[in-house]
Amino acid sequence: MPGNSFGERFRITTFGESHGGGLGVVIDGVPAGLPLDLSAIEQELARRRPGQSAITTPRKEADTFEVLSGLFEGRTLGSPLTFLFRNADADARAYAPFKDLYRPSHADFTTQAKYGHRDWRGGGRASARETVARVAAGAVARQVIAPIDVVAWVHRVGDIEAPDGWDPDAWEGGAAAVEANPVRCPDPATAAAMEALIRAVRADGDTIGGVVRCVCRNVPAGLGEPVFDKLEADLAKAMLSLPAAKGFESGSGYAGTRMRGSQHNDPFVPGPNGQPITTSNRSGGIQGGISNGMPVTFTVAFKPVATIFQPQYTVDENNQPSILTPRGRHDPCVLPRAVPMVEAMAALVLADHLLKARASRP
Amino acid sequence: MPGNSFGERFRITTFGESHGGGLGVVIDGVPAGLPLDLSAIEQELARRRPGQSAITTPRKEADTFEVLSGLFEGRTLGSPLTFLFRNADADARAYAPFKDLYRPSHADFTTQAKYGHRDWRGGGRASARETVARVAAGAVARQVIAPIDVVAWVHRVGDIEAPDGWDPDAWEGGAAAVEANPVRCPDPATAAAMEALIRAVRADGDTIGGVVRCVCRNVPAGLGEPVFDKLEADLAKAMLSLPAAKGFESGSGYAGTRMRGSQHNDPFVPGPNGQPITTSNRSGGIQGGISNGMPVTFTVAFKPVATIFQPQYTVDENNQPSILTPRGRHDPCVLPRAVPMVEAMAALVLADHLLKARASRP
Amino acid sequence: MPGNSFGERFRITTFGESHGGGLGVVIDGVPAGLPLDLSAIEQELARRRPGQSAITTPRKEADTFEVLSGLFEGRTLGSPLTFLFRNADADARAYAPFKDLYRPSHADFTTQAKYGHRDWRGGGRASARETVARVAAGAVARQVIAPIDVVAWVHRVGDIEAPDGWDPDAWEGGAAAVEANPVRCPDPATAAAMEALIRAVRADGDTIGGVVRCVCRNVPAGLGEPVFDKLEADLAKAMLSLPAAKGFESGSGYAGTRMRGSQHNDPFVPGPNGQPITTSNRSGGIQGGISNGMPVTFTVAFKPVATIFQPQYTVDENNQPSILTPRGRHDPCVLPRAVPMVEAMAALVLADHLLKARASRP
Amino acid sequence: MPGNSFGERFRITTFGESHGGGLGVVIDGVPAGLPLDLSAIEQELARRRPGQSAITTPRKEADTFEVLSGLFEGRTLGSPLTFLFRNADADARAYAPFKDLYRPSHADFTTQAKYGHRDWRGGGRASARETVARVAAGAVARQVIAPIDVVAWVHRVGDIEAPDGWDPDAWEGGAAAVEANPVRCPDPATAAAMEALIRAVRADGDTIGGVVRCVCRNVPAGLGEPVFDKLEADLAKAMLSLPAAKGFESGSGYAGTRMRGSQHNDPFVPGPNGQPITTSNRSGGIQGGISNGMPVTFTVAFKPVATIFQPQYTVDENNQPSILTPRGRHDPCVLPRAVPMVEAMAALVLADHLLKARASRP
Repeated sequence: MPGNSFGERFRITTFGESHGGGLGVVIDGVPAGLPLDLSAIEQELARRRPGQSAITTPRKEADTFEVLSGLFEGRTLGSPLTFLFRNADADARAYAPFKDLYRPSHADFTTQAKYGHRDWRGGGRASARETVARVAAGAVARQVIAPIDVVAWVHRVGDIEAPDGWDPDAWEGGAAAVEANPVRCPDPATAAAMEALIRAVRADGDTIGGVVRCVCRNVPAGLGEPVFDKLEADLAKAMLSLPAAKGFESGSGYAGTRMRGSQHNDPFVPGPNGQPITTSNRSGGIQGGISNGMPVTFTVAFKPVATIFQPQYTVDENNQPSILTPRGRHDPCVLPRAVPMVEAMAALVLADHLLKARASRP
Repeated sequence: MPGNSFGERFRITTFGESHGGGLGVVIDGVPAGLPLDLSAIEQELARRRPGQSAITTPRKEADTFEVLSGLFEGRTLGSPLTFLFRNADADARAYAPFKDLYRPSHADFTTQAKYGHRDWRGGGRASARETVARVAAGAVARQVIAPIDVVAWVHRVGDIEAPDGWDPDAWEGGAAAVEANPVRCPDPATAAAMEALIRAVRADGDTIGGVVRCVCRNVPAGLGEPVFDKLEADLAKAMLSLPAAKGFESGSGYAGTRMRGSQHNDPFVPGPNGQPITTSNRSGGIQGGISNGMPVTFTVAFKPVATIFQPQYTVDENNQPSILTPRGRHDPCVLPRAVPMVEAMAALVLADHLLKARASRP
Repeated sequence: MPGNSFGERFRITTFGESHGGGLGVVIDGVPAGLPLDLSAIEQELARRRPGQSAITTPRKEADTFEVLSGLFEGRTLGSPLTFLFRNADADARAYAPFKDLYRPSHADFTTQAKYGHRDWRGGGRASARETVARVAAGAVARQVIAPIDVVAWVHRVGDIEAPDGWDPDAWEGGAAAVEANPVRCPDPATAAAMEALIRAVRADGDTIGGVVRCVCRNVPAGLGEPVFDKLEADLAKAMLSLPAAKGFESGSGYAGTRMRGSQHNDPFVPGPNGQPITTSNRSGGIQGGISNGMPVTFTVAFKPVATIFQPQYTVDENNQPSILTPRGRHDPCVLPRAVPMVEAMAALVLADHLLKARASRP
Repeated sequence: MPGNSFGERFRITTFGESHGGGLGVVIDGVPAGLPLDLSAIEQELARRRPGQSAITTPRKEADTFEVLSGLFEGRTLGSPLTFLFRNADADARAYAPFKDLYRPSHADFTTQAKYGHRDWRGGGRASARETVARVAAGAVARQVIAPIDVVAWVHRVGDIEAPDGWDPDAWEGGAAAVEANPVRCPDPATAAAMEALIRAVRADGDTIGGVVRCVCRNVPAGLGEPVFDKLEADLAKAMLSLPAAKGFESGSGYAGTRMRGSQHNDPFVPGPNGQPITTSNRSGGIQGGISNGMPVTFTVAFKPVATIFQPQYTVDENNQPSILTPRGRHDPCVLPRAVPMVEAMAALVLADHLLKARASRP
């Protein structure tokens, strides 16, 4: 019931602070006997890693991990699978000068208000570094849910928006197009414009927000547990639990609210395996909270990163006014690194629902 | 772990199908000794009730309820509080002609795919009638969380949008302005335009979507359980679990993603009680997943209702193509009745987090 | 997280007080499509019913129930299955004279201490009447777990003990021998002696305790979720949650603690289906918290019922000394009616673990 | 929902196998700001440690641990507190010769049946080594629940039983008498006899079982969450989740079942603070599943350790008969080391219920 676990049957518990002994994740409920592909996990971690390109934070974290438990002779045991990441480049000195100040739009004040004691070094538990544990767990989940595949990409940065579309197969290069540039936008021209914007923003000591899109393909019909644990409800929670996330849309989302039912409804036509398919997918692959076999589509909104290198008004722990001029390391735009995070959380939700659906089979 | 419960410490379990014996809710975790105001519950139910105005479904449900347990001498016992609603106007005959067809963008097919057996009468468990149980439980939650108050309203229907703004005190008539018209939009001119649109849509046998806004005031700083059960994550799940909901925004939401950090950050200034306040509220009252004492603000997107009175292509249970020409009763626009549902779910989330926060107090 | 739910995947929530509007149970997680045998449920209820014989409480409750939800055309929907029992013979007047007194070894004082407000009529929520909901739910669970069968019986009342043995097939009449007499002891001679003792105890206005034994046959190997949700751990919790239960033994239990390992270990020999069986069953069918395919055996200790018709020292709500001379209705010995309760809780645990085991299957 | 977590609001998740990378525990829900006494944790670990005396297994584990997260400047952060124990003396060679055999009354077969893949080295996840994580977590829980104190001791080994009694203050030396000898029986004469028995049993290559008693003092009235999460129900589950545990008694337990109600009931008399106390404590401090302010008392039965150094009949993974002649390290009697395990689990249950009770306070 405390908040550091996610999922019910495929359940992760993450731990660790940005500048403490390390971060990690315990994954309980991994089916036994799975031959675990560790290199696939490393690959996902590399996509999340700071310092991976010129447009991300220069913090250096190799993000190598140790498997503490749950694996024997290369296969999962069904017992908790635990990964530990040591904090390598944990230099807290940059934070010391303003450790008594509440950084605007960060979690400093709320952490203090809730807990009365906080680790001011790098945001402590609220640091985006915590997502390293999620991405590793998500990479395990992907191996559990195969052949379901999960592809996310940067759809918009600031006002620069990629062409509409939800089908990775329609892209030049397919799903791999996402990884073809540091911005993780599959449209090269848009990606170039996004990168230029991010560089300009960084030059101003500023940050910028944007939108990630995600599609999950090969999701079988029948996942989701109404009336509260609907598939899109759990996806929404998963996404809003990511740092800097401020919005979620399933299928047609906010745009769909402007439509009439006659425009919005997805007609059924006979499909393979005795199951219908829809000729459009405004439902985003989910109807009544349950997957319908079509691609599951959603977007996630990310606000601009709160750490900016400009003076800001704030107060200190004694409620006295002050001016903060931050130092440290940060991302001018979280979007490129948010892509693997979104995919990881989606994979975790799908793994959990896949196992839960099995429980109900006769 | 099955999906019909919501919340952890203030936990509701709803049951019932649209045309079965009745609907109900068991609320576990209600603090003992609360003098329960039943008329306040009835009042919320009246706001959700079908047939309340000319622009809602004509289904007649008095929505009177029986308190089965948990109440003694007018005060809660700390044992489960249970409400039962009988289905009064449950005429299933209108559904019989197309009981073998999958209504487009309804839960018929996915329910069949998941469970292999379904109650085709009025959507069964997937009917919006289930929300009567949520609204009743939410009305209890409101009494638990007082003096926190929760106000939602219709901000947009189709393309007709109310003026921006999040402060009910700024409205003519204050928060009560929401109830001054059947659309539940506090701006009279917008409300009139919305109502005209809804009437036009209905005349076409069609439906229309829109956006609800909600503000929760007097939320103390410190609610939310990072890193997964963040306050906005639980709100997002709560809202996406509502029928027809397709999107959620916390604070600045999607609009905020177009901003720079220097524009988006909320500066702190000294506030009362030794705690800072922010001079803007793009964070929507939540930072790092924890409430900061400012109003909690969010929006919910609702798609157009799937039931339209126009012929639609679909398939039957044998995967054969067919044409559906629906009959029955429905809402041309779910937005006005969604307002109390959104408020109820918000109150449930806040009650749960309020009780959980108490558990962690020294 | 409040305490009125049990189970995770097959999850029941009970509600209601002894003398309120009624009692009931919501069962979430029942697999869909199950043809529900209502008469089998009624049969279990009849075994628990007060007034069923001369040695039980004379309270008259028909224990008829209404199915409020979850059933359509005779088969389960996968949505919550809800049963409602009205309180028929709820005469609270007998309790009024001592409503301000704390009855010794009852829950009156602790309920007051915990909740600050209590329903003094018949014990309120703490009444054994609550178990009607458990027995009904257990009767559903039995249909889910078939061909697993669960047989409990009265092994000891006071000092009168049946011959040792765990195999219903060894009894004259088989498992049906349990129902051959009102005491529910399969050994006729012991049963007669037990009944005589219970009658004598009742004549004294007194009560007596005893021990129930239970065996679950056809349990497949592999149920149980170490390291905390071990099968015997969940059985222990289930049994100790029953009113008046004070002890639990798995397999050899306390007697086994006097043995040496060389006497206690269960040797493996080759069995059918490529799986070993054990030549003895001191493990009680569970090893390392997981079922091993042998019969699951356990005992439950029940203290003498607290309601006696003799004057007792006690205090009132103002902490003033008083003498209680109870009136009302009660069982002189809870054991005969505890048999179906024990079976119900065992079936609930097994159903939950069976569904959970399915979730982990590849 | 997988089984490696325990507790709801004070929630531990343990991980690790006997001979893998290490063992550990993540404790979520620890109130923030607690000055953590690490030496008190080390002290509890020393009591559980193998090799602590001549009558325990010679396995050498220093059981030193690393705090991976949750602690900053000596005080808890409210984030997950994580401890890691490296496996130091993990020599798996002794297990290799019989890695294909199912050791009788061990978890080898059931683990294989459930997971299809197992770590045969030292029992893997089923090893009692896992309890190091529980004891560490329990030592944290003790600091959370102070001034509640928890004292367990060895009451019986085989047939050698200590004098009756539940009050540590009545012992020569008080509660410290438990630690005055390696058997952890507070009665010196009984302790000597027990030690002699254990030595004799070991000389035979055999093992012996016994009973631990435990008393929790200063438990406030009001802990426990009926009707399922009753305090004794959660204690029962906690205890039966310990390796080798086969029974649990609350208060008068099995002996009480032989009594009449008039003998068993605990009379109330006026006590301090306006609350009654009872003149006897056959209820074991719990009535109706809720603590009544009297000492909480219970026993736990432990079977003889399954590892014996005598040839035993068994089968191998191919269901072929075989004879096992074990080697390795083991305890001839688990009882002395079970004492801190029992205390740890009791402290965990009490911490969880204490925090949950706070959640319900107005």
